[in-house]
Amino acid sequence: MAKKKTTTKKRPAKKHATKKAPSSKGPAARKTDKATSARLEKLASDVVRTSMAHRDPFLDVPTRTLSNTSYNKSRRMLQMGSATARRNLFDLKMARKFMQSMLLASGCKSLIDAEKTLSLRGMYYKCLHTIPGTKEKTLDDQSESDGVLEDLEVTIGSLREELHVYADKRGDLVGNMTIIDAGDEIDLRRMGSGGYSIPSIVEPSVIQFKKCEADFILHVEKNTVWQRFNEDKFWKKHNCILLHGGGQPSRGVRRLLRRMNEELGLPVYCLLDCDPWGHYIYSVIKQGSINLAYESQRMAVPDAKFLGIRAIDYERCELSDDVQIALNDRDTSRAKQIADYPWFAQNRAWQLEIKKMLSNGFKMEVESLITKDISYVTETYVPERLAAGDWLD
Amino acid sequence: MAKKKTTTKKRPAKKHATKKAPSSKGPAARKTDKATSARLEKLASDVVRTSMAHRDPFLDVPTRTLSNTSYNKSRRMLQMGSATARRNLFDLKMARKFMQSMLLASGCKSLIDAEKTLSLRGMYYKCLHTIPGTKEKTLDDQSESDGVLEDLEVTIGSLREELHVYADKRGDLVGNMTIIDAGDEIDLRRMGSGGYSIPSIVEPSVIQFKKCEADFILHVEKNTVWQRFNEDKFWKKHNCILLHGGGQPSRGVRRLLRRMNEELGLPVYCLLDCDPWGHYIYSVIKQGSINLAYESQRMAVPDAKFLGIRAIDYERCELSDDVQIALNDRDTSRAKQIADYPWFAQNRAWQLEIKKMLSNGFKMEVESLITKDISYVTETYVPERLAAGDWLD
Repeated sequence: MAKKKTTTKKRPAKKHATKKAPSSKGPAARKTDKATSARLEKLASDVVRTSMAHRDPFLDVPTRTLSNTSYNKSRRMLQMGSATARRNLFDLKMARKFMQSMLLASGCKSLIDAEKTLSLRGMYYKCLHTIPGTKEKTLDDQSESDGVLEDLEVTIGSLREELHVYADKRGDLVGNMTIIDAGDEIDLRRMGSGGYSIPSIVEPSVIQFKKCEADFILHVEKNTVWQRFNEDKFWKKHNCILLHGGGQPSRGVRRLLRRMNEELGLPVYCLLDCDPWGHYIYSVIKQGSINLAYESQRMAVPDAKFLGIRAIDYERCELSDDVQIALNDRDTSRAKQIADYPWFAQNRAWQLEIKKMLSNGFKMEVESLITKDISYVTETYVPERLAAGDWLD
Repeated sequence: MAKKKTTTKKRPAKKHATKKAPSSKGPAARKTDKATSARLEKLASDVVRTSMAHRDPFLDVPTRTLSNTSYNKSRRMLQMGSATARRNLFDLKMARKFMQSMLLASGCKSLIDAEKTLSLRGMYYKCLHTIPGTKEKTLDDQSESDGVLEDLEVTIGSLREELHVYADKRGDLVGNMTIIDAGDEIDLRRMGSGGYSIPSIVEPSVIQFKKCEADFILHVEKNTVWQRFNEDKFWKKHNCILLHGGGQPSRGVRRLLRRMNEELGLPVYCLLDCDPWGHYIYSVIKQGSINLAYESQRMAVPDAKFLGIRAIDYERCELSDDVQIALNDRDTSRAKQIADYPWFAQNRAWQLEIKKMLSNGFKMEVESLITKDISYVTETYVPERLAAGDWLD
């Protein structure tokens, strides 16, 4: 033990020093941080206790594989099974991963203590160093730290955001709502043409909903479409929240959708392209990502609706052939994969939708409705679908 | 002429109909729109006049090539030369491009009349149709309409944004400033952790600066770094505007930097990676893009400063080898290309900087400073460089 302590000191002194910021956190934030801290401490003290008892320290990491993922029909959500894999310290194949897990856990603990957050890239750098007495680095690249961090999330049952680690932020929002973000009151009704930029971490410790008159949420796929809806003041005319996720929505966007759906009781309508990519985005918003099923219980919006674009719209809206983008082989096989997802497989309307798209032989983008009129989508298409209750579930 | 009119009627009736929005525009916006409209009308009336005189209608399009681009040393800016290419209607090779130019010009005119804006993708759909009496489409794909739109910009001397066409929006902003955006007053001092999302179109007709106490602008490359600076309230402590451009900054971000620099007199400091990509981003902010030199006079910030990361920082900041990312062959050749840009070629400090990076043999990211401490970059690195006036010009 003595030797280990000495070599540890060789590491650059400031490397893991994290000065504590002046605390400006509310009670909710402090409570979450305390709970997450306690889980990290338990993880560490279990290892210490095992070591002191002269046994091989280990971690039981829930298995993040498809075979350990199932669709819970009654909760309408993806969930992880109970399979775990044991990660031992005294095993040549596992020692490195064990070390990395401890390193990342310790890194997150110091972030929470310092009341600071860090990007995934930043976390990689924070935990990267040469292992004393060797030429080996703690991490080969960021994909290693990202993976270990996901293990850590499922092992202690905390979201990455609760571990104070964030990814790229994406997505903008406007609408009939006032929020508090990091202590600032923000009136989302007065955000001009730019909008409020959705943060990476939208946990109740950061974002609180102060006042909301909106009746529903319209989620659009692309920021260019969002700009069209915002310019036409759609959210004002139809009393809603308007947001986009910049394509595949980030965790911040998904978590915010979930929180607004759950806490404010707002239905979520998704306006996405009529193509496998649009269907997949809907699937992720609704059920969660298959690879990261453990997030679903905190991020999925099982009652989100798919408002369009629908494969029947080509005839129904009398579109010209200008809107057609031919499906390629990859689209076709992707569409068939998606049709087999458990929540689509037993849904007759979705089976018909995907079948119709395949028999059409083409995709259609939301923006193609501009061939009718610039504001057809905001003034006719979406209002008509909403009024008729015409969507897929 | 009679026949042409008849076939034209066959096009879907609503195709180019653009209902006018209730006018909410201020005098500045109306003035710009009027000027742009007048230029588009002149373009059209010249064609009509030539036709009526039984001559071949043409457009003289300034040449957007490297050979027609030069660096104006005294203005410290890229500028286009006077070379133009004539585009005739009665020429088999040019007729299609001529038709597309008229089509896009007419599309922009109808956008301005309707007081609406549209994305590049939307503009493609708006102008796409089958040419009556043929099976030919007006456009093969969006790259055609994008290119013709750039021709149109240089031909009539209006920015794309003035033609009411926008691209993806990117970039967030916070800081000691109040702006008006589309009539909404936005206090950028109270934007929480998310920030204000920078719109695509930031012309004076949309964005006005109401009140600004800030002393300077800090532009960072990535949104993850921006989040670190915002969390540490850097902009509050150092009285500045903090923004990022999500990598290569969008036109909206560049135009906003230029306007804040010019109209508010704020110096612009760029915190970018020590790699050819970071150097290129700086070059675009400072001088404009070589391929789109005509934008420079409205977008370039010739006195923008490069604050870091610098190649000497590895020694100067006593960084560990954890920060090193080996330069690959592509980086090396790109670095040499950039060193030859006219504004770098005659700048001794920049020649030394690139030489030092090449002799180091590695790149460094802003985020790698986290190996010192989470907030080293916000609390030590940037404040020390600013205090010492230590940057590249």
